[in-house]
Amino acid sequence: MTLRLYDLAAADPDRRFSPYCWRTRLALAHKALPVETIPWRFTEKAEIAASGQGFVPVLVDGDRWLSDSWKIANYLEDTFPDRPSLFGGAAGRSLTRYYSTFADGLVAAIFPFVALDILERVADKDRDYFRASREKRVGMTLETFVAGREAKLPAFRVGLTALRRTLTAQPFLAGDEPLYADYAVFGPFQWARCISPFELLEKDDPVRLWRDRLLDRFGGLARKSPAYDV
Amino acid sequence: MTLRLYDLAAADPDRRFSPYCWRTRLALAHKALPVETIPWRFTEKAEIAASGQGFVPVLVDGDRWLSDSWKIANYLEDTFPDRPSLFGGAAGRSLTRYYSTFADGLVAAIFPFVALDILERVADKDRDYFRASREKRVGMTLETFVAGREAKLPAFRVGLTALRRTLTAQPFLAGDEPLYADYAVFGPFQWARCISPFELLEKDDPVRLWRDRLLDRFGGLARKSPAYDV
Repeated sequence: MTLRLYDLAAADPDRRFSPYCWRTRLALAHKALPVETIPWRFTEKAEIAASGQGFVPVLVDGDRWLSDSWKIANYLEDTFPDRPSLFGGAAGRSLTRYYSTFADGLVAAIFPFVALDILERVADKDRDYFRASREKRVGMTLETFVAGREAKLPAFRVGLTALRRTLTAQPFLAGDEPLYADYAVFGPFQWARCISPFELLEKDDPVRLWRDRLLDRFGGLARKSPAYDV
Repeated sequence: MTLRLYDLAAADPDRRFSPYCWRTRLALAHKALPVETIPWRFTEKAEIAASGQGFVPVLVDGDRWLSDSWKIANYLEDTFPDRPSLFGGAAGRSLTRYYSTFADGLVAAIFPFVALDILERVADKDRDYFRASREKRVGMTLETFVAGREAKLPAFRVGLTALRRTLTAQPFLAGDEPLYADYAVFGPFQWARCISPFELLEKDDPVRLWRDRLLDRFGGLARKSPAYDV
């Protein structure tokens, strides 16, 4: 039975932009598992109620409904052990958890740059929900939140120093070939370029070159998706 | 032949405080390799000249002189493959590099809290060198650099969020048992408590509890070293 993935979409149903769903999509591709992706909007909570919560990714495998990108990655690893490993062994799996958690922090670090661009691109029916929920989270209007974002860019880029140094020393976080640690950290950067024309990374930044190597993987899966050339 | 490690010491030769040397000491303990540690001061460059550079850790294995904690860890893994692995496999080794690089950044993040405490505890002959080299690096006097350090503490602790969340979910970065990724990140925290009475981590911080679990490893190797109870 084909797996189904509820995948966050903008007004344009082909513009998929969840940082967490992208992790799952690359994990599925890594395991060469076909998947039917279903465009899903923030307010379509009822459609994923069977997962017991209201956020994507939600993966449906037969009668199993799974949520949380980290749990989904572990499910895929355990359920399809004969396919290419996402973690590179038991130690690798534990070592990957920090990457996933660190990448969650990257989503928060990138949000001040793209928040208003998201608002402009979400489906009409999602707009009020997105504004209200995010303004509650950040404690101000999204317009105020993103004001002067250019000035915040140098500090954001400095914050990527360890990532940059690592990716200067080796092509992927997992070494010569990418594993889930790469996909987890890639998610936030793919989110940004799918939903915002703001140039987060300089063209020659080793972090951007690594991101671009991942765009090319799996037949260009992540590159083919509607996005901005930044 | 017993391995020898040049190990940064304060005025008190038993107070060993290099974040990078601590990584190596735990890596050697992990591989159950006996080592003779040699107290070394910042200005004793001549003693380690055979390593081709002027910083510790320097590990001497017969006629081989090795420097750079990451290179030393890889040397130990490759030279003693039958002893417990530091990385947990090939993917684990690559995945560990980021931890090492991230931990280098932690040293820089912790330095504003402990810089003056180091100055007060280094050997007399190191004092001028330490002040001059560090003041050049930070662009101000060490007194100015550490002024108001309490005010910087909340942001430092927030910066450990991903580490904290990971160590709430599992006992060590590498899972149920520590590997080199743990030792690499432990180094900066051990450095701080060995040289400074400043309380960097709250008592119930999961990061501190993890640090304390590592203090207990290898017969309390890191706990027995002169340090402050913070």
